[in-house]
Amino acid sequence: MIWRVQLGGTFCPSDILGGWGALSALSDHATRVGGRGSRIFLVSDRTVWALWKDEILGSFGAGTGMPAVHLVTPGEASKTVATVAECWNWLASEGARRDDVVVAVGGGVVGDLAGFAAATYLRGLGFWQVPTTLLAQVDSSVGGKVGINLPGGKNLVGAFYQPEVVVADQRLLDTLPAPEFASGLGEVVKYALLSGEPLLEKLERDTTAVMSRTPSAVSRLVEECVRLKAEVVQQDERDVGRRAILNLGHTVGHALERAAGFGRLSHGAAVGLGLLVTLSVSESICGLAPTVLPRVRVLLTRFALPTTIADIDAGEVLAAVGSDKKTDATGLGFVCLRELGDPVWGVRLEEAVLATHLEVVLT
Amino acid sequence: MIWRVQLGGTFCPSDILGGWGALSALSDHATRVGGRGSRIFLVSDRTVWALWKDEILGSFGAGTGMPAVHLVTPGEASKTVATVAECWNWLASEGARRDDVVVAVGGGVVGDLAGFAAATYLRGLGFWQVPTTLLAQVDSSVGGKVGINLPGGKNLVGAFYQPEVVVADQRLLDTLPAPEFASGLGEVVKYALLSGEPLLEKLERDTTAVMSRTPSAVSRLVEECVRLKAEVVQQDERDVGRRAILNLGHTVGHALERAAGFGRLSHGAAVGLGLLVTLSVSESICGLAPTVLPRVRVLLTRFALPTTIADIDAGEVLAAVGSDKKTDATGLGFVCLRELGDPVWGVRLEEAVLATHLEVVLT
Repeated sequence: MIWRVQLGGTFCPSDILGGWGALSALSDHATRVGGRGSRIFLVSDRTVWALWKDEILGSFGAGTGMPAVHLVTPGEASKTVATVAECWNWLASEGARRDDVVVAVGGGVVGDLAGFAAATYLRGLGFWQVPTTLLAQVDSSVGGKVGINLPGGKNLVGAFYQPEVVVADQRLLDTLPAPEFASGLGEVVKYALLSGEPLLEKLERDTTAVMSRTPSAVSRLVEECVRLKAEVVQQDERDVGRRAILNLGHTVGHALERAAGFGRLSHGAAVGLGLLVTLSVSESICGLAPTVLPRVRVLLTRFALPTTIADIDAGEVLAAVGSDKKTDATGLGFVCLRELGDPVWGVRLEEAVLATHLEVVLT
Repeated sequence: MIWRVQLGGTFCPSDILGGWGALSALSDHATRVGGRGSRIFLVSDRTVWALWKDEILGSFGAGTGMPAVHLVTPGEASKTVATVAECWNWLASEGARRDDVVVAVGGGVVGDLAGFAAATYLRGLGFWQVPTTLLAQVDSSVGGKVGINLPGGKNLVGAFYQPEVVVADQRLLDTLPAPEFASGLGEVVKYALLSGEPLLEKLERDTTAVMSRTPSAVSRLVEECVRLKAEVVQQDERDVGRRAILNLGHTVGHALERAAGFGRLSHGAAVGLGLLVTLSVSESICGLAPTVLPRVRVLLTRFALPTTIADIDAGEVLAAVGSDKKTDATGLGFVCLRELGDPVWGVRLEEAVLATHLEVVLT
């Protein structure tokens, strides 16, 4: 079953196709692009490429010439000024033109890097995403945030650039290592909380099917998350208002990631812990029912995600929260949950209050 | 006399203020920005800063704290990946936030560089332009094209990013070396051709006043050019159609610049020569009256711009035109003039035809 979500962006509407075997949809798009004389420039990482090269290249069909391919080393270290400069120089040496298309085949790092290169080369080439991780399929491939890191911080440089086409084939998740799959589930839990009781219940019911990566269960889950994200993004493409709700659990999550030392916690694991702290805060200042937090704790456990973390200094976490808020100059404050499906953003939170709630996860 | 042109951009309308002493307008804007708690980040080059530092800093008034300042080496070599990375790292080390403002004080290089940094840091800071060259005042500071060069070519990386505020104070042109002033006049002649008989006549009448940099004459001239450019840009912000007319004379101009070796011809000198070739082409294939070319030749001479160039190989020029057309994938072809004020874009031109018209300027 192929599903489809459409996101009407300001300059470029995103056509998001998903489901088991959705890759086959690429051939029509590639034929259209080939028909107008444009070329395809694939960016991927070495691991993804080793596993899926034949399927990916095959899915473009005969409608285009062989895509040019640029491979990067997997991991966050490939999201730098140097790696984007390599992409730009590659596009220049290949003679890329404004109507050509960059296709990111990989997880969040590849999508962010290739997307930023596509957004800026000749002031904007075509851009498609083929997310190959659960995290990228439910979250980073949708919404048009692309960018790179600086020594001074993550994602400090970037653009808003909607992919014209996102093809999220859940079959690609087959080769995903368990911790990376679990990392994506951290974001899925966030979407369930933002969506409301029905999605949370469904998630609780389908835990086993999801963990065994049953095609239909995983595919439906990704679809629900993408649908919700697309709806939120469409209302606030430039992230100046309600899009902030997508940061539920992230302010604390990022701070935990930083305080733990990058690499110790996966993104989804950090978000899961951040959600627990946020739910505790929400109980205390937004009147959230105390039944939600225990349910999420059980869910995270069943998804092989941590619910506590040892040997982290609360002071360091608070300092990281402070520095995060400073960079995020929207001044929107924290996102809390009044009830399932009812987030509120722009909540002002005293450091001392946050400190007490950190105890929910710090052991 | 302060004049004002407003350009309604998609995300950000541009408020363009000009005239002798227009710098004073900065203080109101700075006070507004300071009032909301935002900071100002000035980017300039060492030459401009040595000449105008006190006036610039003074013009921000007391409404803001002292702006942070980042200086670059004057010249095209400052439009690289390395220099934009320095800007990004500077903004990071200064803790710039999304509601802060980057102000470019300088010519096209500083505007393009600082504008690209502003467009991409935290996915977009505020951006103002204070153009200090005639070329930047009439052309590059208006319209939102920002970017950097790659080893493979000029302006290959960039963005469309409208400055919220442009302050074009003609007093700043007082210290401009004569060849740079003349270079700006090359673009001015282009605008006269695009605008029509009245502006061309006015230019012919005011030559002496313009060359002696009489405040009122220069200021009115800049205003006319900016008004025309803003109108064209507003109709086609993303450069997918009619904005191409702004390239009148540029395809050949760029090719001459390249074939001559960068640095030998100023931008405006190359554009002037490109205009002569373009007018010759226009006579032959668009029915342009043969009276226009001689008038432009006289005008260029009076503006201290070349009307011929020696020791350039026509074959190299044609090769450069071909490579330019390849990168410019809009496929819009050449811009010609049917009559004064009536440009046509998308003209297909055989290399052999162009070759014969190059003789107008090659000696």
